[in-house]
Amino acid sequence: MSTSTSTAIAGSTRMASEIAEQPDAVRRTLEHLLPEQERLRAAFAGRRRVLLVARGSSDNAAIYGRYLLEVSAGVPAALAAPSVATHYRARLDLSDALVVSVSQSGATAEIVETQAWAASCGAATAAISNVEGSPLVDAAEVGLVTQAGPEVAVPATKTYLTQLVALAVLADALGTGLSLAADLARVPDEVEGLLGADVSTAAEALAGAGRVVVSGRGLLLGTALETALKMEETCLRPVRGYSYADLRHGPISVVSEGLLAVLVASASGPLAEPMADLVRDLQERGARVLGIGGTRDFARACDLH
Amino acid sequence: MSTSTSTAIAGSTRMASEIAEQPDAVRRTLEHLLPEQERLRAAFAGRRRVLLVARGSSDNAAIYGRYLLEVSAGVPAALAAPSVATHYRARLDLSDALVVSVSQSGATAEIVETQAWAASCGAATAAISNVEGSPLVDAAEVGLVTQAGPEVAVPATKTYLTQLVALAVLADALGTGLSLAADLARVPDEVEGLLGADVSTAAEALAGAGRVVVSGRGLLLGTALETALKMEETCLRPVRGYSYADLRHGPISVVSEGLLAVLVASASGPLAEPMADLVRDLQERGARVLGIGGTRDFARACDLH
Repeated sequence: MSTSTSTAIAGSTRMASEIAEQPDAVRRTLEHLLPEQERLRAAFAGRRRVLLVARGSSDNAAIYGRYLLEVSAGVPAALAAPSVATHYRARLDLSDALVVSVSQSGATAEIVETQAWAASCGAATAAISNVEGSPLVDAAEVGLVTQAGPEVAVPATKTYLTQLVALAVLADALGTGLSLAADLARVPDEVEGLLGADVSTAAEALAGAGRVVVSGRGLLLGTALETALKMEETCLRPVRGYSYADLRHGPISVVSEGLLAVLVASASGPLAEPMADLVRDLQERGARVLGIGGTRDFARACDLH
Repeated sequence: MSTSTSTAIAGSTRMASEIAEQPDAVRRTLEHLLPEQERLRAAFAGRRRVLLVARGSSDNAAIYGRYLLEVSAGVPAALAAPSVATHYRARLDLSDALVVSVSQSGATAEIVETQAWAASCGAATAAISNVEGSPLVDAAEVGLVTQAGPEVAVPATKTYLTQLVALAVLADALGTGLSLAADLARVPDEVEGLLGADVSTAAEALAGAGRVVVSGRGLLLGTALETALKMEETCLRPVRGYSYADLRHGPISVVSEGLLAVLVASASGPLAEPMADLVRDLQERGARVLGIGGTRDFARACDLH
């Protein structure tokens, strides 16, 4: 066995055990962060919008947070461009914004620097990190420390999921007339239920596919992009994440025979039906579709589900 | 000759003639839009930020606009997520925003719908389109009609470039103490100078490459993404655009022997030096680099320039 193969197997064993820890990680994180909602509301008082700062996997989590804040909490949200802070050193008036930084380690230099820049531009700050006492958490007005425990595998799983939980806690805190508390309480059991799923057919289809792309939309766009990144990190092959619109209206070159399209869909909401239409559209152009989630109509339309 | 080959050649002839029209298209657009700056300032009065709405090539132009507004004009800017408007129908308070929609035809349904939604959320509206009397322009408070003339080829060239000009006119109008007027006046001649460049070596390298990616950062990120899209549209092969950070810190699978990385760099500014570092980093990982623009150091480091 080559060194790189044995390293990969050791990595995938660690990754599998960290995936199995997810329900408990979510439970602990909810318990730890829900009491912080009052401080989040205080930091946001008198402000109008949220600006998210992140990179890599955390950036995909932030995309979910952005949609959740706008769609469910009615709070305008956007992602910051770190180079505006770290390289161009622009002077913006951010006194109307709560800046929420997301970094697993809480030590990524450009995120720490961007948070400091945001504070100097007048923003209130909150930091989502898995590490208590990290520079990002220490410098923020409100620290939201996820309780995933140490993560050893390079592809983030339990830390990523707890970032999503932290962002849901944030949206729940800032939205008026919103209550995600009951839904959030169900998450650990739902995750536990999914861990037992048999994914061997899906894995075979992915292994045998010529080219793989992943797509989702709205609240699930971040998940689709993260799924693509996870496949790249674990399978060491290029997998591209597309927004729904880019895949549907993009150049024909993208979709052709031999392509396996992984679609991530929600079981309800205004995008459930368009996702089922996308399945048929891709199939007409010669692709096979592996679906995750979605409505019954969506599941039936997929080649694999 | 097959039908598809002759169609492709006819398309590329049209595209070439439309590229040649760019200097005049820019001249006409500047002449037409600079007098609109007063109305743009009036629409922005009392507001704090700009929200850009676009899709496809126009989305890449909007990314340039976003950086330019923040970096050069000091105005917070972000890209809207159209599905928040068209599917989720979120109720956001946008009374602090000027919403700028960008669409070549001015008739893209989701962009027209998103602009109407933004107005109903309290935003002021401006529309950048190449078509006078289009639904987008007619419904906007300020219409910025680019003067590229009809574009027949599918890959947008002169309409895209004039969108960038319109966004620069916007940033120039909203920035305090900023004057891009002299720089803008030089653009048509600069574009004219570039049209005569010999790109045959670059074309050969691209044709012979196994896999091609494009990257840029900050003000040139939009250009890099648009370059990737143009290659997909014209060569009918997948070409991925990456942000600098994603390419530098992304999974190793992306960069390997046989990869040709096209890097778009600026000749000055705080990102000039990091782009030269990226060249060497990619080369160490086995890629060849084709550089466009940048500093002398950057040009020297590239395999092709």
